[in-house]
Amino acid sequence: MSDKIITVAVDAMGGDDAPDENIAGALLAAEDQTLRIVLVGDTDIIRSKLATHPENILIKQAGEVVGMHESPVQAVKRKTDSSLVVGANLVKSGQADALLSAGNTGACAAAGLLVVGRLGAVSRPAIGTLFPTRRGFSLLLDAGANADCKPENLLEFARMGSLYMQRMLEIPEPTIGLLNIGEESSKGNFLSQRAHDLLQQTEDGFTGNVEGRDLPEGRTDIVVCDWFTGNIALKLMEGIAHSIFEEMKEMVDSSLSAKVGAALLFSRFKELKAKLNPESYGGSPLLGVKGVVMIAHGRASAIAIANGIRCAADAVRRGLVEQIEADLAG
Amino acid sequence: MSDKIITVAVDAMGGDDAPDENIAGALLAAEDQTLRIVLVGDTDIIRSKLATHPENILIKQAGEVVGMHESPVQAVKRKTDSSLVVGANLVKSGQADALLSAGNTGACAAAGLLVVGRLGAVSRPAIGTLFPTRRGFSLLLDAGANADCKPENLLEFARMGSLYMQRMLEIPEPTIGLLNIGEESSKGNFLSQRAHDLLQQTEDGFTGNVEGRDLPEGRTDIVVCDWFTGNIALKLMEGIAHSIFEEMKEMVDSSLSAKVGAALLFSRFKELKAKLNPESYGGSPLLGVKGVVMIAHGRASAIAIANGIRCAADAVRRGLVEQIEADLAG
Repeated sequence: MSDKIITVAVDAMGGDDAPDENIAGALLAAEDQTLRIVLVGDTDIIRSKLATHPENILIKQAGEVVGMHESPVQAVKRKTDSSLVVGANLVKSGQADALLSAGNTGACAAAGLLVVGRLGAVSRPAIGTLFPTRRGFSLLLDAGANADCKPENLLEFARMGSLYMQRMLEIPEPTIGLLNIGEESSKGNFLSQRAHDLLQQTEDGFTGNVEGRDLPEGRTDIVVCDWFTGNIALKLMEGIAHSIFEEMKEMVDSSLSAKVGAALLFSRFKELKAKLNPESYGGSPLLGVKGVVMIAHGRASAIAIANGIRCAADAVRRGLVEQIEADLAG
Repeated sequence: MSDKIITVAVDAMGGDDAPDENIAGALLAAEDQTLRIVLVGDTDIIRSKLATHPENILIKQAGEVVGMHESPVQAVKRKTDSSLVVGANLVKSGQADALLSAGNTGACAAAGLLVVGRLGAVSRPAIGTLFPTRRGFSLLLDAGANADCKPENLLEFARMGSLYMQRMLEIPEPTIGLLNIGEESSKGNFLSQRAHDLLQQTEDGFTGNVEGRDLPEGRTDIVVCDWFTGNIALKLMEGIAHSIFEEMKEMVDSSLSAKVGAALLFSRFKELKAKLNPESYGGSPLLGVKGVVMIAHGRASAIAIANGIRCAADAVRRGLVEQIEADLAG
């Protein structure tokens, strides 16, 4: 990989803890001199929080903010001076190589689609999200763009996810599973039954259906499904891990021997909790658009933002977009 | 509740550990003299495992077995001498008040629909499954009958689930949530957006959308969704709880202080694990058919089978089917 300077536009105003965590994350990432970071947002606010800053951080004015609960397409169309849309335009015009946002996920996907633009060979861009498993990480897609899908869309998701895992995680032959309600090919709803047939015909890495219980085991490197199903699954994984830890905390508080036991296990618990915490990770790529667009968790910490910036730059260096375009057109 | 004798037909051959666990479960349940249990299956096999048995256990011959992976509707139509279909016919003819099976879930739903018969006021029967939450239990439906649903189906599921929670769990005003990908009413796919509007118009207990992360918290007493989504969610809950415990076991094995800590926490862990284990529960009702049909987990232990038998008898005593018919026709 070259050490060419990569410019990453960061939506400074998007996210639950914006702009503070976003700015702190940009500062962390800027320690890498091969990165140039453009903080996009209200210049006065950003400057008030950044008394001094390294030369490889730039600030770009944007007067509006897309709220976390705004209707994505409408917000992107109307708020042309929002930090998200201005950032996306930097990618479109070539002034930035990549965009990172921790804002409204749907609006990020809409900005990718409407501003940065869809790759000609892709009918529906999709968001891929890495989730922790017993074997490491798997990539689930779609995690944010298409609530209702056609079987062919799932085929594209599988292809794009496979390229992501090859290029970014250096897995030479990633395996693909279709999230479904049984192992047998005959199982499923209208969408999954047809998607199964298509995947079987065309994808070498396709190993068949995976069920809900296979996800935490990491049975395949890639899990494809429509966004509705993917969202339920990802939020459920977050929720259960949280609940189990809360439940344990209560149990532990109820007896002395349990307290002593928990104290002895403390560092191990912390490791496990960190592994299961989605905030630990950098970002989820929007795949299928003409540029690198990385979406961070709404509650992204400074560390998550910095990881997201690094990950976005890495995707540029590794030629992810060019690879997807070439492969899906071929 | 009266102490009238209730007859429960038990599919002796259905389930991963049939007939042993099923027979042992029937023996446990038969300690209650107000129950009469009909073990349905291969008489020779059942008799070989039951040297003597109490008078309130009867045996009914059935020469075939529906396999766990057979196509449900075909199996029910063809295997008319299977323990499942013979058991369902006992309910239809009034020789039994209820049926319990730990066999192929889809086939149980098909036997309920095709043999016991659909209630006139219900367009699609649904399976309800109780799952553990931080507040107690919530009922998710559909958990096994309808992979593709129409919005009106979800409305019926909500109504039937609500009656189940009122009658069986004695919750006077159960709350209903629609499993969806955001809290706002505008969120979702084609199905969930329309179902949201219908539920809002007609169900007093409807409190809006619930997300994946709300399930373990037990935000509503009832969660409605299509079976595809419900299956993914339920199997994921099972899988994650299992994975977290496995992960902990490995961590604990890696250091002495962690081992000591874990030993001190052992009984608490066991409690939590038991709470999260679906095998601890009795059965999931098939709602919307002309009789009580209860479906146990495929890996049901003797205790789970016994609980399922008691739960089925309880549903008969509490007039669940009559209540659903009256309410949905009204």
